[in-house]
Formats: sequence, structure tokens, C-alpha cells
Amino acid sequence: MQISKFATPEIIFGNQSISQIGESLSRLGARKVFLVSDPGVLDAGWAEQAIKHIKESNLDYHLWTHVTPNPKDYEVHAGAAEYRDHECNAIVGVGGGSAMDAAKAIALLGTNDGSILQYEGVDKIERPLPPMVMLPTTAGSGSEVSQFSIIVDSARKVKMAIISKSLIPDIAIIDPQTLMTKDGRLTANTGIDALTHAIESYISLAATPLTEVLSLSAMRIISQNLRPSVASQYNLEAKQAMAMASLQAGIAFSNAILGAVHAMSHQLGGLLDTPHGEVNAILLPYVLEYNYIAAPEKYRKMAEAMGENVAGLSLHDASRLMMKAVTNLTGDLQIPVTLSELGLQPEHIELLSRNAVQDVCMATNPRDMSAEDVKALFQKAM
Amino acid sequence: MQISKFATPEIIFGNQSISQIGESLSRLGARKVFLVSDPGVLDAGWAEQAIKHIKESNLDYHLWTHVTPNPKDYEVHAGAAEYRDHECNAIVGVGGGSAMDAAKAIALLGTNDGSILQYEGVDKIERPLPPMVMLPTTAGSGSEVSQFSIIVDSARKVKMAIISKSLIPDIAIIDPQTLMTKDGRLTANTGIDALTHAIESYISLAATPLTEVLSLSAMRIISQNLRPSVASQYNLEAKQAMAMASLQAGIAFSNAILGAVHAMSHQLGGLLDTPHGEVNAILLPYVLEYNYIAAPEKYRKMAEAMGENVAGLSLHDASRLMMKAVTNLTGDLQIPVTLSELGLQPEHIELLSRNAVQDVCMATNPRDMSAEDVKALFQKAM
Repeated sequence: MQISKFATPEIIFGNQSISQIGESLSRLGARKVFLVSDPGVLDAGWAEQAIKHIKESNLDYHLWTHVTPNPKDYEVHAGAAEYRDHECNAIVGVGGGSAMDAAKAIALLGTNDGSILQYEGVDKIERPLPPMVMLPTTAGSGSEVSQFSIIVDSARKVKMAIISKSLIPDIAIIDPQTLMTKDGRLTANTGIDALTHAIESYISLAATPLTEVLSLSAMRIISQNLRPSVASQYNLEAKQAMAMASLQAGIAFSNAILGAVHAMSHQLGGLLDTPHGEVNAILLPYVLEYNYIAAPEKYRKMAEAMGENVAGLSLHDASRLMMKAVTNLTGDLQIPVTLSELGLQPEHIELLSRNAVQDVCMATNPRDMSAEDVKALFQKAM
Repeated sequence: MQISKFATPEIIFGNQSISQIGESLSRLGARKVFLVSDPGVLDAGWAEQAIKHIKESNLDYHLWTHVTPNPKDYEVHAGAAEYRDHECNAIVGVGGGSAMDAAKAIALLGTNDGSILQYEGVDKIERPLPPMVMLPTTAGSGSEVSQFSIIVDSARKVKMAIISKSLIPDIAIIDPQTLMTKDGRLTANTGIDALTHAIESYISLAATPLTEVLSLSAMRIISQNLRPSVASQYNLEAKQAMAMASLQAGIAFSNAILGAVHAMSHQLGGLLDTPHGEVNAILLPYVLEYNYIAAPEKYRKMAEAMGENVAGLSLHDASRLMMKAVTNLTGDLQIPVTLSELGLQPEHIELLSRNAVQDVCMATNPRDMSAEDVKALFQKAM
């Protein structure tokens, strides 16, 4: 039995909880808030609502929205310069994983020197970060509770994982109403991202009974609620459930880390700027098949959590059912089925495979994986 | 849907994790540590081990062990005076719920004025507490992760619940090896306390999907591991499981609060200094029967979590099985079956019942309860 560690931010959950953003920042000693958001969230009106509540607490703010999906190192550097120029002392991220990961990276550079590239890997951060409050507007990334920030190294075209307890926000505010302004495709992609977090954290080598129970619960909720959530923008009950599932999966993976799906999808995201959830959805069945022999009993439990009847089945057959449940779900949501559809060319695979085995998420994958193994999986997924 | 809040300390879990106590205190800025423990824990050698690791981190310390089961207000006041006299700036509790609750109350008075009696109730603490690290040596109280401190008001002879997010320790270190120095009776009592936390938090009016999944998991683990843990002092696997169950139940009840069992047992503990777990075990079946009509579907899920086969059963019959599972467990552990065995006299009941409805834990009980209702339950349990 190894020693494990577990940490989460303070969590505020519920409809209208966005109204607590000002008070939360005040409690943390904020004076002037650097608000990171993206143009889509701005259009939907959520940044404006956040600002209203920040002003109600008599706090000053500076809005910054120059973040793109798969946030880039140069965006983070520009944001950090603005953070300093405007003499802010706290950070809020309002948006999906990209806005929140950018906000966390800017916070990192708010108190630590140099380039964001220096901080790739585990525990490279030296000085405490400014107070951070995160408010997710998608149900998927888990960034609001995680110790991860994923930033693209634009020169190398790879996604760097920065992992440190310092990156765990102080307060996560989860308001399911914000999910009602997202279209079906984004809802599906982010939902499958959450499912991948739940699955990879559950079979991770660093899983503990505390993370496992959250991972399984997230799978259960997603299996029951992702379809109706994609079906209707106005199904608030399904949105609430998905917000809770994403939160649970986020807490689980932040503490148990991930596996090969993320190690591989980080490479594609860096190279081709592909939507993270779609890449995960395409890779997941192949990686699940590969990993199965490492944890058959866990596959049986995942099948059960996903609503399959495994009574009387062998571990082999129960595991097959689990994999079928995943492809049934991604099929129902009409997610692309091949990486070529997302623009991957055969000549990319060699480099991506070599990089994937170096990704920090690969260290906790339950089955050993060489660059050759990764290559074979990429090829199957073409 | 109401807005809910959720908070936990940073958690370090595993055999030998006691070795992380010095480093954890250093990280929190400790200079001189006030170490709260009790004579039993001292005898078992755990305080000594903690001191060794505190010294390894070059921290100064002051050991204080004048705490009794059901810690009293005057003990807290004496401890706080010593904390100040020795110019400490951080607090460690090494022991069961009594030592940790006393440590938290001393921490409270380390930075806040007056008597501990002023802080009874919810959110009465004004100033931030000194850094706190808790290391439980029983698997039951959950104090290492909770926002509760339960202190006896010795004049009124009642247990006061002090509840505040400020009372959540900064770091909880859970080392299952410490459970191997406890006898069967203490293991049983504290284990039933953990089960009561899991059950009361699950049916609490303040439960959320995040706390419910932890409550159910704790019930599942306790049903499978408490018997073997009581059977053998050296069954480390069972101790590890019970440590995890107590942790999960602790996180759940800290955030979802408790119910009538605790509201009632606090009164007995205050009046007669009775062992908390035993009182809970005696009261639990009666309160479960009373509360059943408030949440039959939850009773069915609890029955399942406790290993009962509820397939095809009505909610009524599944709920009966759940209650049977509880009395089977307490029966197997030979816990006393009546409150008279613990010294309760009929003439006490009137006062205890009036006080129980005022207890803060009563507010989240799922079924309304008058003083008359409480009285009837106390009488049944005599």
C-alpha cells in the first residue's frame, strides 16, 4: 500500500451559484480580479453576469478574452503581461477547459518567473499562486477542480501537461444553468471528455478507493444523462446531472491522474488543434481494448456502472459489454469515428507516438505501452 | 435545487504516512507545534512517533495530553492557555475524535477570544485558525476532515456542536497502522460511529450527489470489513478498509451534516459521559425505523450497499432488510442493547429530549421530530 494524496478546492454547486463569485473572491482577499473568458462565453452573457457579481462585491476587474480552444503558450504570455500591467491580485476563469487552463497558467506566471514552457511536468512550481476562482461553462474538462493545466507549446506543437497542487483553484463554482447555452456538439464532446476522465482515472495505477467511487459514480450519471443532455439545450435536469458527473470525474482524475487516451489525444490536440472530446471519443475504444487485460475485474464494475447487466457473465464477456456501452454512447451521439476525419495524416503518426509515451498521463496507464504500441493504436483509429 | 457547498482538507492516506507529519507542518508555516494527544495514544507510542517526525523537520513542539473522552470545556480552556503560554503557532491532533475535537477547539481559541461556549452553533468563528494537521488513530470520528468540534459544556452537561468551515483541518494524515493498537471494543464502537455518519449523512436533508456516493461507499466498506477488523487487532487489510470508510463517511457528514441519532447521543454523552459509538449503536435502529417513511427509496439503496439482496422486493421490505443488516452487525459485535445498561435513568429523558430537538444535527434529520417524538424513542431504547 502506497501513500496517496487527495486534494480538492472548496466547491459551490447549484443553479444561480454564479451569484457567489464576488463574495468568494472577497473572502480570498481579491482587490482587482483578472477575468479570463472566451468570445463564445462572452456572447452567451456569462462573463457579463460574472462581472455584475464581481462589482456587487466592490471589486475592480480586468476582462481578458484572447484565448482559443487548446490554449497556446503565447496567449498565456500575453495574458500574464496584461495581468501584471493591470496590477491584478486574483484570477477568475469563466468558460470551458481552455479558458480555465489559460487562467491557471496566467495565475502561475502571476507569481512565478519565466516562460510557461519551464513548468511542464510535475511539481515545477515554486511560489504560491494568486487566489483563483473557476466557473466552468461546460460539463467536461474538470479544470475547475484539477491540479492540471494543459497548454500548447506552439513551437513544438505539443500539448504540455503542467501538474501541481498549486494549480488547484481555491474555489470552484459550478452553475449548471451555464450549460444551457451550449449546442449539442459541444455538449457531446465535453461529455465524452468527462466519461474519459472517469474511465481513465478508474483504471489508473494511481487510483484509490476514494477516487474509484467518484469515477464509477460519474460513469453511472453520464450513462444515464449525456444522451438527454445532448438532445435538448433546455433539459436542465440532465445539465445538472452532467455538471455533477463532470465534477466527480474531475476530482477523481485530478487525484488519480489519467492514461493513454489523454497521453495520445494531447499530441493530436497540439499538432492539429482538434476538439479534445472528439479525439478522446475516437481513441477510447481502442485504448480500452488494449488496456483490458490489465484490469478485467475493473472492466466488469465499469460495465455495471454503465447500466449493463453482467450477472453470470465471465470477466471477458462483461468487459466486452463495457466496451460496447462506450461505443453505443459515442455512436448515438454521432461523434466522428476516425482520426483521418479530424485531419490526421499517416506521416504524423511516428512523431505523435514517440511524444505520447513521454506524456505525463502515460505513467499511470494500467498496461505498459511502448511507442510501437501507441503507433499501432493510432493506425487502428485512422 | 439549492446551492450546496463542499470542502475537505488535503488528505494523505497510507501506511507509514505518519512520517509526513513534520513536512506537512513545515509546508503550513509551523514554527512551534502544539501537539494534542491522549494518554492511551501516548502509551501506544503514536505521539512519540509523531514527535520524532516533527523534530526531523526541525520544528519545536509542546505536548499536551490532558484530554478525556467527550472532551470538556475546561480542558479546552486549559489547553488554550498552554498553547498561548508556550507561544505555539500550529496545532496537531493525534488520537481519536476526542483528541482531535479538543485540538480544533484549542486552535479556535488560539486566534479567537473568550470562552469556547460562545462558539456553539454554526459559523460563529470570526478569525482564521492557526494551521491544523490531524492524524486519527481510530476509524470512526471523521474529525480529521470535518467542520465539527463537539465539546461538553460541563455546567449544563450537554455536548455543544461547533460547526464552521474554519474547523476543517488543513491536512488530514490517515495512517491505518495506528488502528492496530486498539482493542476490539473501541474498534467496534468507533466503527459503528462511522456507520452512523454514513447513514445519517446519506438520508440528511442536506445530502448532495457528491456526499451520497461517499456515504454509500462507506456503508459498503463497513459492512464488509468491520467484523474482521474487530475480530483481529492485526488484520491490517481490514484496518485499511475501515480507515478509508471512516474517511469517506467523515467527508460526507462534514458536508451533509447528520440527524437525530447524533442529536440524541450528544445529550447522553454530555450527561453521562457515555461512549459515543455505543450510544449511536443503541439508538440507530429506533431512529432508522422512525425516519423510514421520509426516504424509503434511500433505504432500499442502503440495503443494497450493505450487501442485502433487494431484487424484486417492495420498498417496505427492502427497508426492513436494511434495518436488519444494521442490527445484525451491532448484534455480531456484542454492543450493549439498551440505554439503561449505559446508566440512563427514566427521570433524565424529559430534559434530554428537550435538548435534543435544539441540537444542530436535528435540523437535517429527514423526518420532523418533536420533543415528544424524541422522548418516545429514548423510552423504546431503555
